[in-house]
Amino acid sequence: MSNERLIYLALGGAGEIGMNAYVYGYGRPGKERLIVVDLGVAFPDMDTSPGVDLIFADISWLVERRDRIEAIFITHAHEDHVGAVAHTYEKLKAPIYARKFTANIALRKMQEHGHPNDAVTVVLPWPQTVKAGPFTVGFLPMSHSIPESSAMIIDSPEGRVIHSGDFKLDETPLVGEPFDPDVWAEVSKDGVKALICDSTNVFSPNPGRSEATLGPDITNLVQSAKGMVVATTFASNVARVKTLAEAGVRAGRSIVLMGRAMKRMVEAGVETGILTDFPSTVPPEDAKSIPRENLMLLVTGSQGERRAASAQLARGKYQGMEMKEGDLFLFSSKTIPGNEKGVIRIINAFSELGVDVVDDSTGLYHVSGHANRPDLERLASIVKPQVLIPMHGEHRHLREHVKIANGNGMTGVLAVNGMMVDLSGNQPTIAEYIETGRTYIDGSVQIGAMDGVVRDRIRMALNGHVVVTVILDDADEPLGDPWCEIKGLPETGTSRTSLVEVMEADLGQWLGRAGAKILRDDDKLNEGLKRVVRQSAFDEIGRKPEVTIVVSRLS
Amino acid sequence: MSNERLIYLALGGAGEIGMNAYVYGYGRPGKERLIVVDLGVAFPDMDTSPGVDLIFADISWLVERRDRIEAIFITHAHEDHVGAVAHTYEKLKAPIYARKFTANIALRKMQEHGHPNDAVTVVLPWPQTVKAGPFTVGFLPMSHSIPESSAMIIDSPEGRVIHSGDFKLDETPLVGEPFDPDVWAEVSKDGVKALICDSTNVFSPNPGRSEATLGPDITNLVQSAKGMVVATTFASNVARVKTLAEAGVRAGRSIVLMGRAMKRMVEAGVETGILTDFPSTVPPEDAKSIPRENLMLLVTGSQGERRAASAQLARGKYQGMEMKEGDLFLFSSKTIPGNEKGVIRIINAFSELGVDVVDDSTGLYHVSGHANRPDLERLASIVKPQVLIPMHGEHRHLREHVKIANGNGMTGVLAVNGMMVDLSGNQPTIAEYIETGRTYIDGSVQIGAMDGVVRDRIRMALNGHVVVTVILDDADEPLGDPWCEIKGLPETGTSRTSLVEVMEADLGQWLGRAGAKILRDDDKLNEGLKRVVRQSAFDEIGRKPEVTIVVSRLS
Repeated sequence: MSNERLIYLALGGAGEIGMNAYVYGYGRPGKERLIVVDLGVAFPDMDTSPGVDLIFADISWLVERRDRIEAIFITHAHEDHVGAVAHTYEKLKAPIYARKFTANIALRKMQEHGHPNDAVTVVLPWPQTVKAGPFTVGFLPMSHSIPESSAMIIDSPEGRVIHSGDFKLDETPLVGEPFDPDVWAEVSKDGVKALICDSTNVFSPNPGRSEATLGPDITNLVQSAKGMVVATTFASNVARVKTLAEAGVRAGRSIVLMGRAMKRMVEAGVETGILTDFPSTVPPEDAKSIPRENLMLLVTGSQGERRAASAQLARGKYQGMEMKEGDLFLFSSKTIPGNEKGVIRIINAFSELGVDVVDDSTGLYHVSGHANRPDLERLASIVKPQVLIPMHGEHRHLREHVKIANGNGMTGVLAVNGMMVDLSGNQPTIAEYIETGRTYIDGSVQIGAMDGVVRDRIRMALNGHVVVTVILDDADEPLGDPWCEIKGLPETGTSRTSLVEVMEADLGQWLGRAGAKILRDDDKLNEGLKRVVRQSAFDEIGRKPEVTIVVSRLS
Repeated sequence: MSNERLIYLALGGAGEIGMNAYVYGYGRPGKERLIVVDLGVAFPDMDTSPGVDLIFADISWLVERRDRIEAIFITHAHEDHVGAVAHTYEKLKAPIYARKFTANIALRKMQEHGHPNDAVTVVLPWPQTVKAGPFTVGFLPMSHSIPESSAMIIDSPEGRVIHSGDFKLDETPLVGEPFDPDVWAEVSKDGVKALICDSTNVFSPNPGRSEATLGPDITNLVQSAKGMVVATTFASNVARVKTLAEAGVRAGRSIVLMGRAMKRMVEAGVETGILTDFPSTVPPEDAKSIPRENLMLLVTGSQGERRAASAQLARGKYQGMEMKEGDLFLFSSKTIPGNEKGVIRIINAFSELGVDVVDDSTGLYHVSGHANRPDLERLASIVKPQVLIPMHGEHRHLREHVKIANGNGMTGVLAVNGMMVDLSGNQPTIAEYIETGRTYIDGSVQIGAMDGVVRDRIRMALNGHVVVTVILDDADEPLGDPWCEIKGLPETGTSRTSLVEVMEADLGQWLGRAGAKILRDDDKLNEGLKRVVRQSAFDEIGRKPEVTIVVSRLS
């Protein structure tokens, strides 16, 4: 029996969909050499993270072990896998490996942050491998909704582990490599210790459909349209963007790309040689002179993002283009849970303009990039891993995936963020529980999700904010009356007089009665003022606001 | 030709789903006698209305014409139709008419607010009618997901108008009256001027299913469950609550009602004689002594509401009950757009407890309470109105419904909130555009959506809040340094020193250089301080916060 162990640890992505960050280690306990797979972001929302720009996994655990990190591998160029590489580079300074297209996107991010170009190394696909300490790692092509998505073939002295990355089993993906069952059988034939596997679509009961099935229906739709056609999808879904563009061309329309991400992704596709035969496009400024029935715009904003091209078109003009009665808008995309309201807002805005909106409810114009339940079972049956550990899913997805694995005679392990799994020996065990969390990118600053900053914002949003100012003279006596400023609170309450005046009167009365002992003691004074103003507000407007007390002593 | 006119005006509910408030009027322009149909609420969300408790339509237009309001009619007891009756009573003081069950719910609201009991009058269903000025109004029973939902048969000297209320065409609704096509043909046979019609499910292509189809599948599910079964649905869906309870009884389980609304609705059903044979229930305190495999709890919280019974069970104990591995939780409900995240949060929490969750994705355990497209067409084909005006829908629903009506040879009119339609004569016309809006119930206060109160809350949530305090002596010279308090902002920025200290230094410097002209002028001083502190914050943390300036002059 060896002293070394092989470990798996999710810092993000296992128990949520988003901000993927997985760690593998090999070595003596506490001395393992480490590799990281994916460093992605998640997106904020008003409910839990107002004002925040981006979210990624708390990497404190890695930072403390920085000298043991051999490399970072990025499976593909989706933001939830690659989005945090530049934000974490200063702290980790580990070499980053990715395939050409992914590296292109990663490098753009690194450059924006002024990080060195040589931090990212381009790797050819399997069978080429990268040596990283005790690990040998290869990028096995996998179909997904972005080019060059890859599974990681991770070899260690304890055997082979396969990290699926995001995938679907598409044998005709149009752009990028098809799923090849023979290659998968080949890499699995000598035994696979563990398959760490995407779980996003575990609740979808039917086999997934190929990207290739969409072309004819999208073409029919565009051909039958009378006015301008505008279509949106994730810009990174280069195959879809191409399918849409080709449908437009077939319908005799000029193609216009709108939105930064749309242009960037097509550019990256062309630069890296993936998108060799993308139809020629027309710049937005030239599009204005083309009759609208001869135009097809491909725009960003499939999730209803307020600043994306789709939302701007819904509100009015965007880059000189405007939608009108009789135009068609196509969502060649699925709405991610949580984005429904934003998407519906856009659909209603288009409805007001007289634009017809087509979404994916018929199933004709969108297919998912993730493997459905039968596909997950098919891959597992090819790989035949000793252990299956679901990842890339909320708790409900992971639990369901474990159930399915167990039902098929495999050993499924439910490991959420922070549960370090020891894969050595015959039976996987939970070796340790690591504290995990979220880091917020907030303007130009990184803050911890639990720092209280965002909590205070939420409280101000829910309760409003009162600022109380009191000046005390050098004898610790109040100089004049206390006064209040309010923000996010109604000006008048039940007594129908000014809320500020009522609070000031109550505070003045309390201050007048407060003895020297309280007036000299900052804490007691603060506490008393806060209590009085909150009660005063509650009596007037039925809620207790957030309070900031400013006491100025002239002594 | 008459000088009088018949008008229709939506103040809420046409252009949104929620806060229904419709007005009909008859008389000389500007002198019409008015009736109101429904006064409902909408629910706030963190994105647009943080801290708000409830929302209802701005009734200023009605308040200004209070002396012309004959009556308020409530079609059914859902919150989006009856929720605002008590909140608006002081301002409108018009008699309220409703059927027995609806009146029971309305009266509970009135009593909570200390309004008189006799403000609500119970009306028997059609053919009984109420005389209200120039109108004669009857409640024609209609099936929906709550008992006694009714269409309003509104007769005026200009002819008959039918306001559908919320409905589905259910001939076996289990509780409440079935849809009766013969009665509808009868009330329509002499010609109907206009059908104002529910549009919620206009995008659902298949005929709706009856409430009666659910019983067997729910019973099978409960019978096959091994542990405790907990089911949630809208409490007001009394038929569903009964179906669930009966399934529990058939499976040999004791029924426990949990959550205030659940108990209140069943109580109202029994009090009004609608729910004559509801199975006997066990109080939660007695349930603890019953083996869990013999229990079925019916709980509130089908939309993931944080304080409802379902969410509390997901987080731990509720009224002494606790869910465990092997228990089953059933959502006999659909998730309303916008509530997805809350519902998913609960499902994941149950997953962590090892509880199996069943939702409506199979279609076996829930049916909608609204008419689908073919049902809408069927009703219209029976009523054969001169004009069809869609209501109870977002813009996209209304627009689609108009298209369908026009496609079927009717005259569809798209009238959103504020568009007053003149139904007199042969062709409907838009008579006026009325300013509409939303009123927020915020603690114990009512505020206008556009008052800026909630806008300030949202801004504080997105940008944080800085309070700057400056004291000027009697010569208008700064007394000491300015100081800052922050809320919702990171403590340190890019310079890695305290954000507050950096801002205070910048402010001090600016104040030192500011001349007497600025120091004596409150506006200039405020503006300057605000500009400096925002720029200072932006340099440090990359965002410009909300700022409150407090200048104290000792003069």
